[in-house]
Amino acid sequence: MNAHMSPDEFRRHGHQVIDWIADYHERLESFPVLSQASPGNVRASLPADPPERGEGFESVLADLDRVIMPGITHWQHPSFFAFFPANASGPAILGDLLASGLGVQGMLWATSPAATELETHMLDWLATLLGLDPRFRSDSAGGGVIQHSASDAALVALVAALHRVSGGATETAGTAAGRFTVYTSEQTHSSVEKACRVAGVGSAALRKLRIDPATQAADAGHLADLLAADVAAGYTPALVVASVGATGTGALDPVGTLADLAHEHGAWLHVDAAWAGVAAVCDELRWINAGVEKADSYCTNPHKWLLTNFDCNAFWVADRAALIGALSILPEYLRNEATESGEVFDYRDWQVPLGRRFRALKLWTVLRWYGARGLRDHIRGHVALAQEFAGWVAADGRFELLAPHPLALVTFALRAGDAATRSALHAVNASGDAYLTHTLVNGRLAIRMAIGSVLTERRHVEAAWHAIQAQA
Amino acid sequence: MNAHMSPDEFRRHGHQVIDWIADYHERLESFPVLSQASPGNVRASLPADPPERGEGFESVLADLDRVIMPGITHWQHPSFFAFFPANASGPAILGDLLASGLGVQGMLWATSPAATELETHMLDWLATLLGLDPRFRSDSAGGGVIQHSASDAALVALVAALHRVSGGATETAGTAAGRFTVYTSEQTHSSVEKACRVAGVGSAALRKLRIDPATQAADAGHLADLLAADVAAGYTPALVVASVGATGTGALDPVGTLADLAHEHGAWLHVDAAWAGVAAVCDELRWINAGVEKADSYCTNPHKWLLTNFDCNAFWVADRAALIGALSILPEYLRNEATESGEVFDYRDWQVPLGRRFRALKLWTVLRWYGARGLRDHIRGHVALAQEFAGWVAADGRFELLAPHPLALVTFALRAGDAATRSALHAVNASGDAYLTHTLVNGRLAIRMAIGSVLTERRHVEAAWHAIQAQA
Ligand SMILES: Cc1ncc(COP(=O)(O)O)c(C=O)c1O
Ligand SMILES: Cc1ncc(COP(=O)(O)O)c(C=O)c1O
Repeated sequence: MNAHMSPDEFRRHGHQVIDWIADYHERLESFPVLSQASPGNVRASLPADPPERGEGFESVLADLDRVIMPGITHWQHPSFFAFFPANASGPAILGDLLASGLGVQGMLWATSPAATELETHMLDWLATLLGLDPRFRSDSAGGGVIQHSASDAALVALVAALHRVSGGATETAGTAAGRFTVYTSEQTHSSVEKACRVAGVGSAALRKLRIDPATQAADAGHLADLLAADVAAGYTPALVVASVGATGTGALDPVGTLADLAHEHGAWLHVDAAWAGVAAVCDELRWINAGVEKADSYCTNPHKWLLTNFDCNAFWVADRAALIGALSILPEYLRNEATESGEVFDYRDWQVPLGRRFRALKLWTVLRWYGARGLRDHIRGHVALAQEFAGWVAADGRFELLAPHPLALVTFALRAGDAATRSALHAVNASGDAYLTHTLVNGRLAIRMAIGSVLTERRHVEAAWHAIQAQA
Repeated sequence: MNAHMSPDEFRRHGHQVIDWIADYHERLESFPVLSQASPGNVRASLPADPPERGEGFESVLADLDRVIMPGITHWQHPSFFAFFPANASGPAILGDLLASGLGVQGMLWATSPAATELETHMLDWLATLLGLDPRFRSDSAGGGVIQHSASDAALVALVAALHRVSGGATETAGTAAGRFTVYTSEQTHSSVEKACRVAGVGSAALRKLRIDPATQAADAGHLADLLAADVAAGYTPALVVASVGATGTGALDPVGTLADLAHEHGAWLHVDAAWAGVAAVCDELRWINAGVEKADSYCTNPHKWLLTNFDCNAFWVADRAALIGALSILPEYLRNEATESGEVFDYRDWQVPLGRRFRALKLWTVLRWYGARGLRDHIRGHVALAQEFAGWVAADGRFELLAPHPLALVTFALRAGDAATRSALHAVNASGDAYLTHTLVNGRLAIRMAIGSVLTERRHVEAAWHAIQAQA
């Protein structure tokens, strides 16, 4: 049992695992959504030391049910309405399995040409599906790449922005090459502040834009004022981050106006559409990406709401030279003819890591299995459910909607106040019947209803609503 | 065909994919190791636009064979001796498949307690298997976490080092908080220079240590001189990176001495043992990690030579507070009771991304399937083959060994000179029978023979040697 798994053993155990997953998806509703485990429960059931001799795969599967499952919060549960969706669809799981089985490293074009070319091609396909501007396509000066996460995308966007605005000086001198500033709204995801810390500009360089209390969107006038004041004070604006679907309430920033202002001062405009961006597969929702044609970079996460399991962040730049200039280092052991020919993309130069999993395979299996129509049905179904849910909230005098909800995220609260909202939320989550999380909207505690699981149907949304009502 | 894949369809196609992978591993030897594709070949066979209607999974599998496979360089091929190994073992593939199927996000303890606790536990198990110092265990002030890659590990080590050496000032002021410097040998992987660029200290802050031409290891005396000169000139040394198994030749730096010097000046000592570190599962090889007990952080890649498919970088810190202090930001929507209790790890604060795949599952399946003995057999087999190979090289007067080779990487050249070495390497690679890459050793072109594939047997090494000899 401590030799390699033979192909026949792999077949046998592989079929068991596939069946286990199919069964899991069939019985998902029987689990409480939110794990009931207390800190330390899972570890207490694991042996202190690793086994000296190998064990059979069946014993691992048995422990999966016994030890691991009670500690799982079920993100694929149809009544998971927390945070944001994290879709794992059948075709994606199988595409990712193929990537594991092939076990290739696409760090350079030469280390598996298909890994690079399929990725470039899938990002072009996705650009078509989302109606992105041709500037982001690989046949222009831009192109797309898969990043690990939207946080990584924000980080590399910042590094590329610093490179460009400093004329390459940050490469050697670091952020000491200037006094750089970054701008984004209060509602923007914390990954932008994290990027500022990681990239060495520091959180003091981050200016938080006021938001419009009604729309929760960034106030472009405030950006104009801040930019003018900073430039007058000798700062160099490097980056403006606009959100299309900010995490808390799904706010949509005025991307085009922010881009114009950024560009007036030589700054880079990055759009974080991590959750919402994929909704643009639907023609009637494409307006959410208005202004993106002016951006320098754009990202959205198929690993959230587009049926592709983690990790898969789709990131595009309009000027790949800035990104590559910021990140490329060519040590001797990576030199090869294809790279030297200049005819190929080496994606290691578009990201922080060197190694690269063949993640384009799962995008390929997803886009082909569903086709454009299947993707649209998926998004439309959730948007329709959310609109219906918002109608129920609006019709119940004990509740109040707190922000616009054009997509599939609805933020609302009890009129009775924060304490009542908090206790209703806790009671619903503790029941295990549904899982929702919270945010603050204009200082008020709000419940977020984020609809987006593959298995969610009208009855699940209805049941969650009844459970919430019962606590009001 | 544009609805979701039903559980029964998933079973059927899942079994097909498992069988495809088993077949692939059985017929791996029939492929040329290095893809023969030219730039654009793969894309030319793909439709320009995504499908409007969904397609059957069988058509995707057919295109996998037709379009993708000719563009694959086979990292799992038994005659793949290039770069470094990228092991994809049966138990790892299945553990990773379970992670895809569960589709949970372990960003916070609360979002799936088992994902966090199994990860902490597996990193403790691995610390035991590698004989790491108790300081790196989760029951001390330290602990382990899975990073995406060794490059990410170097980056977060640098960010934590800057945070610590500046007393937290970099968090707000960025790298302008001081004039920081970083030290590492000429042979260190380029990810350290990339980390300097990304973290905003800039490549000019990176001091490259001279190496000993015989061992290729960092010259500690040079570090002492540089540190003294920099401190005298008003710089703040932030980080020293030592390699255990540098990429080019597998050089082993004097970790303990470098650590002492770093600490004398308040700098952080990070050890990059990306490829070689896992060899310490064997008692007789544990000496490679001598001095690591003094390090502030240490990383090694199970996704290289320890049977766990990409991505899985194991990263430990001795003082988790510095790492968390550097990276933690708690926005409202992530607040929860478990986090506030302080009783749990929230791994999002140990890394750049927010989202987290349940990667500990594949470490668990690997460590249990193989047991400590199986892991040792795996490493020992490759080391023995490499030693035998080095013997053949030494015995053939036309060749010359260029560096120490205590593990499974042998660097050598033709005595006839660089041109002869280059043409021998090209001829072998072009044949498709084996794939090796090169490096520079003391300015001379060297062939790297990196042994580490799951399927590699003595006959493959012997065949590669005969092919090389035939070109001499
Ligand atoms: C010593 C060393 N460090 C770091 C790396 C980079 O690894 P990763 O792809 O995990 O970033 C490598 C890969 O070649 C390596 O050999
Ligand atoms: C708008 C937005 N940006 C970024 C992120 C972070 O995503 P990732 O886990 O891909 O870094 C999220 C996740 O909540 C998000 O909603």
